[in-house]
Amino acid sequence: MCRWLAYSGSPLLLEEFLYKPQFSLVNQSLHSRLGVEPTNGDGFGVGWYGVDGSITPATFRGVGPAWGDQNLREIAAHISSPLFLAHIRASTGTPVQHTNSHPFRHDRWLWVHNGAIRDFPLLKRELVLAVEPDLYPFIAGSTDSEVMFYLALTFGLREDPVVAVQRMVGFVEATGRRQGVQYPIQMSVATTDGERLWAFRYSSEGNSRSLFFSTDVTALRQLHPEVEALHHLSDEARLIVSEPLGELVGAWQPVPESTYGIVQKGPDVLAPFRPIEP
Amino acid sequence: MCRWLAYSGSPLLLEEFLYKPQFSLVNQSLHSRLGVEPTNGDGFGVGWYGVDGSITPATFRGVGPAWGDQNLREIAAHISSPLFLAHIRASTGTPVQHTNSHPFRHDRWLWVHNGAIRDFPLLKRELVLAVEPDLYPFIAGSTDSEVMFYLALTFGLREDPVVAVQRMVGFVEATGRRQGVQYPIQMSVATTDGERLWAFRYSSEGNSRSLFFSTDVTALRQLHPEVEALHHLSDEARLIVSEPLGELVGAWQPVPESTYGIVQKGPDVLAPFRPIEP
Amino acid sequence: MCRWLAYSGSPLLLEEFLYKPQFSLVNQSLHSRLGVEPTNGDGFGVGWYGVDGSITPATFRGVGPAWGDQNLREIAAHISSPLFLAHIRASTGTPVQHTNSHPFRHDRWLWVHNGAIRDFPLLKRELVLAVEPDLYPFIAGSTDSEVMFYLALTFGLREDPVVAVQRMVGFVEATGRRQGVQYPIQMSVATTDGERLWAFRYSSEGNSRSLFFSTDVTALRQLHPEVEALHHLSDEARLIVSEPLGELVGAWQPVPESTYGIVQKGPDVLAPFRPIEP
Amino acid sequence: MCRWLAYSGSPLLLEEFLYKPQFSLVNQSLHSRLGVEPTNGDGFGVGWYGVDGSITPATFRGVGPAWGDQNLREIAAHISSPLFLAHIRASTGTPVQHTNSHPFRHDRWLWVHNGAIRDFPLLKRELVLAVEPDLYPFIAGSTDSEVMFYLALTFGLREDPVVAVQRMVGFVEATGRRQGVQYPIQMSVATTDGERLWAFRYSSEGNSRSLFFSTDVTALRQLHPEVEALHHLSDEARLIVSEPLGELVGAWQPVPESTYGIVQKGPDVLAPFRPIEP
Repeated sequence: MCRWLAYSGSPLLLEEFLYKPQFSLVNQSLHSRLGVEPTNGDGFGVGWYGVDGSITPATFRGVGPAWGDQNLREIAAHISSPLFLAHIRASTGTPVQHTNSHPFRHDRWLWVHNGAIRDFPLLKRELVLAVEPDLYPFIAGSTDSEVMFYLALTFGLREDPVVAVQRMVGFVEATGRRQGVQYPIQMSVATTDGERLWAFRYSSEGNSRSLFFSTDVTALRQLHPEVEALHHLSDEARLIVSEPLGELVGAWQPVPESTYGIVQKGPDVLAPFRPIEP
Repeated sequence: MCRWLAYSGSPLLLEEFLYKPQFSLVNQSLHSRLGVEPTNGDGFGVGWYGVDGSITPATFRGVGPAWGDQNLREIAAHISSPLFLAHIRASTGTPVQHTNSHPFRHDRWLWVHNGAIRDFPLLKRELVLAVEPDLYPFIAGSTDSEVMFYLALTFGLREDPVVAVQRMVGFVEATGRRQGVQYPIQMSVATTDGERLWAFRYSSEGNSRSLFFSTDVTALRQLHPEVEALHHLSDEARLIVSEPLGELVGAWQPVPESTYGIVQKGPDVLAPFRPIEP
Repeated sequence: MCRWLAYSGSPLLLEEFLYKPQFSLVNQSLHSRLGVEPTNGDGFGVGWYGVDGSITPATFRGVGPAWGDQNLREIAAHISSPLFLAHIRASTGTPVQHTNSHPFRHDRWLWVHNGAIRDFPLLKRELVLAVEPDLYPFIAGSTDSEVMFYLALTFGLREDPVVAVQRMVGFVEATGRRQGVQYPIQMSVATTDGERLWAFRYSSEGNSRSLFFSTDVTALRQLHPEVEALHHLSDEARLIVSEPLGELVGAWQPVPESTYGIVQKGPDVLAPFRPIEP
Repeated sequence: MCRWLAYSGSPLLLEEFLYKPQFSLVNQSLHSRLGVEPTNGDGFGVGWYGVDGSITPATFRGVGPAWGDQNLREIAAHISSPLFLAHIRASTGTPVQHTNSHPFRHDRWLWVHNGAIRDFPLLKRELVLAVEPDLYPFIAGSTDSEVMFYLALTFGLREDPVVAVQRMVGFVEATGRRQGVQYPIQMSVATTDGERLWAFRYSSEGNSRSLFFSTDVTALRQLHPEVEALHHLSDEARLIVSEPLGELVGAWQPVPESTYGIVQKGPDVLAPFRPIEP
């Protein structure tokens, strides 16, 4: 499986969450506490939107372990962003290669995923065939995560992200069950268009990978006095993480089972996630 | 495009052809003389059958330039084989990654390709859909070359290699032309099951990449006095190459346009290659 | 050998010179016209100072060929800088690894080099011993270029760069000649502290690798109408390159043999370079 | 720290110990049970002597984690050797790069190390200066392990390995203590010339990393019924490991603190290791 985090708020150096907290994302690449495996050493990536308001996000993705990557450390120390996703990978079988590292990008959209489509080799052909032919050539790697992204795009991610992801999950579940897969999907997902940030926690078996969010910046500041930058963040800053970045797990808000959230200007949203069958 | 070589004969250290001749394959990675580009620095690979008669070949594939790879040098200096393929890659657009380096392998079969399917992003979906569903999950990379291999397997490579490759080419051409691609395919291909070796030279425009073979070992010995091992080779040893390994180009036999060859026990074959339309 | 460029002026996206010109630096990685070799595929790197005035530059360095690196393309398209160095490497024997890719950094200083210390394995021990013991542990790689940098730091790069480089060259030449090396050093070097930019062209044999600079922005604009950003540059913008980025070679100013230059606020400097013997 | 194994006996496919046992070396790259860290993902390597009696061993070394390396899996499944060393690395600070992966090789000698020279950046210059000038140019990487190897060579490894390693350790300890380092060295080391195999367990603090050896093949067979090949091994086959490859830890013989062992034709040796001060 994998670990990821998503941040939205005042522009911040990537390293503030990738390196500085006690259980930073890069620390989790070697010592994840809540993951299926402690080690997430099969590649990594960050995707960020610029402070200059450019529409297309940048990505930097690597194939080695995050913990030893000098370029990631350099970039994290020099790039500020008001909205970024970061991901560390533990492969569930597909090769460790640049095109399989998250985040995946299409136009202005980014996508990170923790989890798996079960028996993916068995289901892959049918799933890939359902991707809109115009989108098909953009599939560059071989992961289940990227196929989920292109299915969501096919089902309208750019128009109605929640419905699109619900349709994608419903389609994967229907396809899997036809092939005799009992629990076809396990996922925590974040996606963003550069303005809003959606997070999803769901699994066919109702026992999803952990997902947490920071309720308000005051709590984050108390959690991470070592991260000086937090003292300058606006109140709207939000962080969503696979697992808490510090000891005080209780100060983080768990995303409930089968739930999605939206981080946006104005009130955030937290609501039930229900797959839509085809 | 790319460069490759295929050898069949008495067991030989890989380095005899990968490193020792003046214009060895590794030399061609930096200084190809007949290729579309002088540089073939986008990965490499070797596939070899053991001296012990084991059925499944081994592969060693890398993503950096062959000229600087220390592991390739080590392996080439220590592994002997009676039948091996080697390939250096110049990408025509798909990513440089392990799963895109040749040779591709399926069961006991190996496959290397120089050339391209033109407008591959446009044609890829239709081509991939034609791969037998049982074979589909084995496609690990994203190249046109690998799709050609799995189409050939779908069309019966394991039963009748020549017909299978003729049907594959016919299918790619028909698909391409339906999409308005004038000259859909350009190729020199080698494939082997560990016993026989097939080579193909063909392009839709009738202007195919160069391909040469050594007529007999005596000529090879004269061409490469610097390769001491050649003096110990049996008379059946054959070498097929994208471009000659030495200055004496004339001493090599060019494979004619639209032709295939078979290297095998008993007389070799050289015959016209004619695509079979679906 | 290698190729490099150095830019100082109004903040500019790295891609403006790394990718956009006809003979951009990345193009030169595959098709150098003036280099010893056309191919510079043994790693690459960029070092840049931020637009926010932070003192320590960032570096991003890779070990594959620049032409195929997706991360370099991303970074170049999203990072602006008023002062940056970029380098593509053709190894003269030392391994292709992250610690051997340029630019090298120490504190606020960056260093790129094209050329070689001849018979470096023979001279290395004596040269390395002359590096100040406090600086010794910072030598991370195994190239002659990095040893030259640490020798220059030892000889006072941070106080008087021109004298320090002249002493470094004098020391290398004296050491080499003691060991019977006729022409011990060949170099074009750029170094910077984030405020000024020094460039050096010198070789023991008086036949140094090419080096050019742009005299004024007007000329650059005429040379590269395809680089839209040049129209917004201030008049102080300067570019120094191993080889011109476009066809109009004549519009670039060659740095004379045995010469150094300084790009700085106020009038630039161009003066004779004379090694100082120890 | 790191993990390693050394095998001497009837020729065996590398995969028999690298992949097949429950706690194989590659399994230990992700799940070491006795290591300082469970993860050893900072590179790997194997060095082997051929079945044909060639004198110089081959090495294959990588920079990613062993657990995901397809080339290692291929090579291990196709190469047999009567004497091989294998190593998985957990960096103690030096870069992850090919030249820092073990085994190190010089002429016919191989060397693997688990442990560290403490405060190595502080001591490195003095240690490196003590390496014989003729050997100095062969130091290709930047690890403490490789410096230990070249110091041992300097102190006579090729003539009297035990005395040479004792002198190397004595020299490192003397150098460290002069600089105020309380416990300068921690090590388990294996080295071989292709005929005999030496293993060393020692640390300045008398609390060395674990090291085990197989007393006889009968015990190994009982330990690893899943490794079919063991049933065909001669009685002289020996395995030395950082940690046992199976559950039955008790069936392995721990190498005592401050001890060296020699595996050779005729009776093996196990004797006290005592550093020799300079």
